[in-house]
Amino acid sequence: MGGQGQKYWNPFIETLPREKLALIQIKNFRKIFSYAKKHSALYREKHQGISPEDIRTIEDIRRIPLIDKEDLRRAQARKEPFLFGELLGVPVEEVSTFRQTSGTTGTPVYVPESWESWQWRIEVWCHILWMAGFRETDRVFIPFGYNVYVAFWEGHYAAEKLGCTVIPGGALDTKGRLNKIQELRATALLNTPTYGLHMAETARSLGLSPREMGIKRMVCAGEPLPDATRKRLEESWNAEVYDHIGGTEPCAWGAMCEERKGLHIMEPYFLVEILDMETLSREVEEGELGVAVVTPLGRRSFPLIRFNTKDVVRKGKVDCACGRTSMMIQGM
Amino acid sequence: MGGQGQKYWNPFIETLPREKLALIQIKNFRKIFSYAKKHSALYREKHQGISPEDIRTIEDIRRIPLIDKEDLRRAQARKEPFLFGELLGVPVEEVSTFRQTSGTTGTPVYVPESWESWQWRIEVWCHILWMAGFRETDRVFIPFGYNVYVAFWEGHYAAEKLGCTVIPGGALDTKGRLNKIQELRATALLNTPTYGLHMAETARSLGLSPREMGIKRMVCAGEPLPDATRKRLEESWNAEVYDHIGGTEPCAWGAMCEERKGLHIMEPYFLVEILDMETLSREVEEGELGVAVVTPLGRRSFPLIRFNTKDVVRKGKVDCACGRTSMMIQGM
Repeated sequence: MGGQGQKYWNPFIETLPREKLALIQIKNFRKIFSYAKKHSALYREKHQGISPEDIRTIEDIRRIPLIDKEDLRRAQARKEPFLFGELLGVPVEEVSTFRQTSGTTGTPVYVPESWESWQWRIEVWCHILWMAGFRETDRVFIPFGYNVYVAFWEGHYAAEKLGCTVIPGGALDTKGRLNKIQELRATALLNTPTYGLHMAETARSLGLSPREMGIKRMVCAGEPLPDATRKRLEESWNAEVYDHIGGTEPCAWGAMCEERKGLHIMEPYFLVEILDMETLSREVEEGELGVAVVTPLGRRSFPLIRFNTKDVVRKGKVDCACGRTSMMIQGM
Repeated sequence: MGGQGQKYWNPFIETLPREKLALIQIKNFRKIFSYAKKHSALYREKHQGISPEDIRTIEDIRRIPLIDKEDLRRAQARKEPFLFGELLGVPVEEVSTFRQTSGTTGTPVYVPESWESWQWRIEVWCHILWMAGFRETDRVFIPFGYNVYVAFWEGHYAAEKLGCTVIPGGALDTKGRLNKIQELRATALLNTPTYGLHMAETARSLGLSPREMGIKRMVCAGEPLPDATRKRLEESWNAEVYDHIGGTEPCAWGAMCEERKGLHIMEPYFLVEILDMETLSREVEEGELGVAVVTPLGRRSFPLIRFNTKDVVRKGKVDCACGRTSMMIQGM
């Protein structure tokens, strides 16, 4: 996918009519629901009495129970097979990457991905980077510790897949990283908002001008990015700065396009429901706040069916000037 | 390739008769020679007056000039296209990974790999890990900084390709890494010899027994591994420890099989000549010391034709109990 001068990473799926997207999402929801029930002990129990054939419409989906981080923890704690427990959707021999949540709100969740499911995550990130203008001519520097947190790992693999020149920035301090950015004339960065600001500040304290360093674009992850911070980063680096939303368990499920006005939901990779905060049973209207309930539609090693992200977002509409037909969520 | 219970990663090429290997190597040498001359300014100049059709036998190859690190530096310094200069064998847009040499002996060499050439390096490493007994049931912990040096990057990707569960150990101190090894019950490690010994020592100083940690195998890289050190590591971890030989520019071109007696040359991925130290013009006899001159036969983004590694090795024979038909080099 992608190619020089091409606007979309995948022109076909990014411009599908809404009704086609809806059909694909319901069909793929039914598929992953069926798969999860067959292969994961967690869902076998949770979805007793619901069969895939019952799922024909979005209303049918609305009746399926939600899961949250606590369910994931319970399905994993001291359960076999070792490490991933009853969450696992493939034989444990098929797991090829291990990542985990930080555990700041409790026990960490271990996230297994098979080769296939990892490639699925990377493909989603190809969309994110492409929307942020990453191209084969970019030199992408990644000032990241390359640890067990998923953070920029998908971005690393996706930038390679796009054909950018990827420069891994592990094991360096901030000064060392600034040197590398200059030495190799990096044109793009992947970092947390905090670290993006910290690098700029360190640069200035060394008498360097981050605005003159040649960085053209930056994708942030790892922390919320209020628009004021995003603009401060743009100002600091004289670069376009892009936000996205997601998490270790569901993957990144929404991201900014070149218009930088709100986030596109990554359809049809995900079914994202934005539900009223009181009952979690009704999709909110445009402009209303709601809780994002996310189902990744193509990952079999770690199936998530109606995962309650507890992220509160404002539902947007389908009217982005970029021409993509995906539903938007608005900045908070 | 590979599969449970299977002895070789690639049973076909690992057991090819010597005369077939030789034919493949000469044919592929001619191909990469021709490719390099057409696509890289360095070789266009260096190989003036030699045409691919002149290359029919190993004696013909022996007449082609050697290159060394100094040639690479000269071809790169201030030469276009930016970063990789006249070494580059593909359009710069096709480069997807950047790595570099450490520059401990002078200016660093920047090593570009296209997607295709990077996959070639990973395939070589799949052989290395498979020979060291890495399988889909292993949990591989990689205590590595994930920086711009190639070090364990190929091992990381190759372990994923094998279907091991790969746990990246960046951004942790030694104690944090020992905790992760225990928490996740890692079964295999990739590390430098020095760091392998340091981790064992740190474990003991914390009252832990590295021998009881469940590590079954370790592949070392980054430093020479004398057999005494290898055995000390095996003793420390109660694990099988495997050596290999290689470098950033040529990739890993020799590695230990399960017999752990000398190194197999990774044929036919490489043509490795072991030449007399005085004239560099004659292949040494079995048991003699010589200088390794290496030609990777499938990498187009960074073609190396007769790269003088300056590594002195002792030529072995083709008699390993493992049944592989590749030429061996003996431990020093």
